[in-house]
Amino acid sequence: MKIAVDAMGGDYAPQAIVEGVMMAATEFPDLSFQLYGKESAIREYLTTEKNITIIHTDEKINSDDDPVRAIRRKKEASMVLGAQAVKNGEADALFSAGNTGALLTAGLLIVGRIKGIDRPGLMPTLPVLNSDKGFNLMDVGANADTKPENIHQYAILASYYAKYVRGIENPTVGLLNNGTEAGKGNDLTKKAYELLTNDKSIHFIGNVEARELLNGVADVVVTDGFTGNAVLKTIEGTGMSMMKLIKSAISDNGAKGKLGGLLLKDGLYAIKDKLDYSKHGGAALIGLKAPVVKTHGSTGKESVYYTIKQIREMLQTNVIGDLVDYFENQAK
Amino acid sequence: MKIAVDAMGGDYAPQAIVEGVMMAATEFPDLSFQLYGKESAIREYLTTEKNITIIHTDEKINSDDDPVRAIRRKKEASMVLGAQAVKNGEADALFSAGNTGALLTAGLLIVGRIKGIDRPGLMPTLPVLNSDKGFNLMDVGANADTKPENIHQYAILASYYAKYVRGIENPTVGLLNNGTEAGKGNDLTKKAYELLTNDKSIHFIGNVEARELLNGVADVVVTDGFTGNAVLKTIEGTGMSMMKLIKSAISDNGAKGKLGGLLLKDGLYAIKDKLDYSKHGGAALIGLKAPVVKTHGSTGKESVYYTIKQIREMLQTNVIGDLVDYFENQAK
Repeated sequence: MKIAVDAMGGDYAPQAIVEGVMMAATEFPDLSFQLYGKESAIREYLTTEKNITIIHTDEKINSDDDPVRAIRRKKEASMVLGAQAVKNGEADALFSAGNTGALLTAGLLIVGRIKGIDRPGLMPTLPVLNSDKGFNLMDVGANADTKPENIHQYAILASYYAKYVRGIENPTVGLLNNGTEAGKGNDLTKKAYELLTNDKSIHFIGNVEARELLNGVADVVVTDGFTGNAVLKTIEGTGMSMMKLIKSAISDNGAKGKLGGLLLKDGLYAIKDKLDYSKHGGAALIGLKAPVVKTHGSTGKESVYYTIKQIREMLQTNVIGDLVDYFENQAK
Repeated sequence: MKIAVDAMGGDYAPQAIVEGVMMAATEFPDLSFQLYGKESAIREYLTTEKNITIIHTDEKINSDDDPVRAIRRKKEASMVLGAQAVKNGEADALFSAGNTGALLTAGLLIVGRIKGIDRPGLMPTLPVLNSDKGFNLMDVGANADTKPENIHQYAILASYYAKYVRGIENPTVGLLNNGTEAGKGNDLTKKAYELLTNDKSIHFIGNVEARELLNGVADVVVTDGFTGNAVLKTIEGTGMSMMKLIKSAISDNGAKGKLGGLLLKDGLYAIKDKLDYSKHGGAALIGLKAPVVKTHGSTGKESVYYTIKQIREMLQTNVIGDLVDYFENQAK
């Protein structure tokens, strides 16, 4: 299984990328890696070349580049070369921690959509706070404007993922809505509700509210990319703000606070650990002909490692191959 | 200033409502109250009748009633009679902790919109976690489907509120979007951005992301009611889940955890206090001819008290009267 790696994307590239790839290469000898990027910069951190090849390029896409223009004009950028390798069958999957919009564009324009899929969606696996489970939220922002049919396809795509990669036999699917009762919602969710109800191939459990997401209300939650983006960022923002408040509660209450913090250290680390969903890997762009997965730009080597582990699961289980078959048969 | 009170709405009605009203009546002798509801049930908790009148009715709207049907058919319901009193000029404002949808409907159909306002919006004041400030989020669900013009009006309505009631001289207005750069967004937010940029009567600062809301990125944040509802519920859900995790960190770590919790007690209560935004009052339905304000159904007497205090501010500052003038002049 060959993974094309954009070694130049993300705030700590290429160091974090190279180190994460080496961790994965050591643990998974069935993987081989193509590192796209500046060879001299990569070599600074590369201590083993077992199953790792460097493909040198000087060009890269920056975090503030306009996505579409960057993909069209920077033909030699590390991300573009990686996507080309997938397209040409020289690699089976693409990893990047770079510019999200550019990666979405490279996925669409170079790797290409599964036949029958209108809009691929971006899908992280988020934590359920009162258990070790997680849930998939799709779409978190690949598409700002969404049709009911897109949401229906997200449900199928994410259900496949939850079943194949996360091993959930008959994953429950909830539609994010402004109330749980049938008939609730805006024009979009009312129509999506109908499509989801009528599709017996998925395990649709109805509307779910944002308040219940972290309680594991469903294995898969589907929504339009604008709302999903706002919800994901609200979870992140609220979680970070609360962690800061906890830190202040410890540091602003003198010796008593500091001792209390020390005694609760393990428990509080466990909270931080719960919120950190990088163990589930990155956000997968699902609906393309091959796995294309993105981690946070601020990612460290561990997140890179976990995301490669996730890509390996996607390749081993052939989830994308089976999705291609499913939608091609639908189209017949 | 006369406030019509739906004494029968909310999980702890009429007790919490009656007790909260008495607290407010004691502190604010310039207010008088009309309590609509079952007289015998109200009298169980009423220990003073100073500035408080009971208007008996047996009918009430339940939390699971269909909003529009309930308002149309239950002509004698406590909420409906309260709204009628406002319409007829017998009361200046309406308070309820009951069925949100029904209150929105009563506001629209009985109290009536300000001339020139297409869609009133529902607007709470939410906490900023690293300061004592708050911010107004509008709309959190009065309207599931929203036009750019609605969002523009929310910005004007909420700016008036922030200025008059919260005393912020030139309140900043942010548009909730999926990125901060101009040009980001879906079809709706792109068009709303244009309208907001071109209105020099408001202090528009551009797009804001959900991640920054609790950091006080703007005094007023406007969004469509579907997204606003999801964001509000995500803040609540994430906050509650994290408080539970903190409790587990204390209770699941033996004697060490319990001692740590004890030492940090003040700091942790301060966090809970920060998250509780009831001190700012309830969610105001803005765009109507008179103040109509809703508190959570699970509200206690303190929230009732704070919401009445908020209504008093709205009446004293004449924010709604001046909004009526503003939009009537616009229409000319």
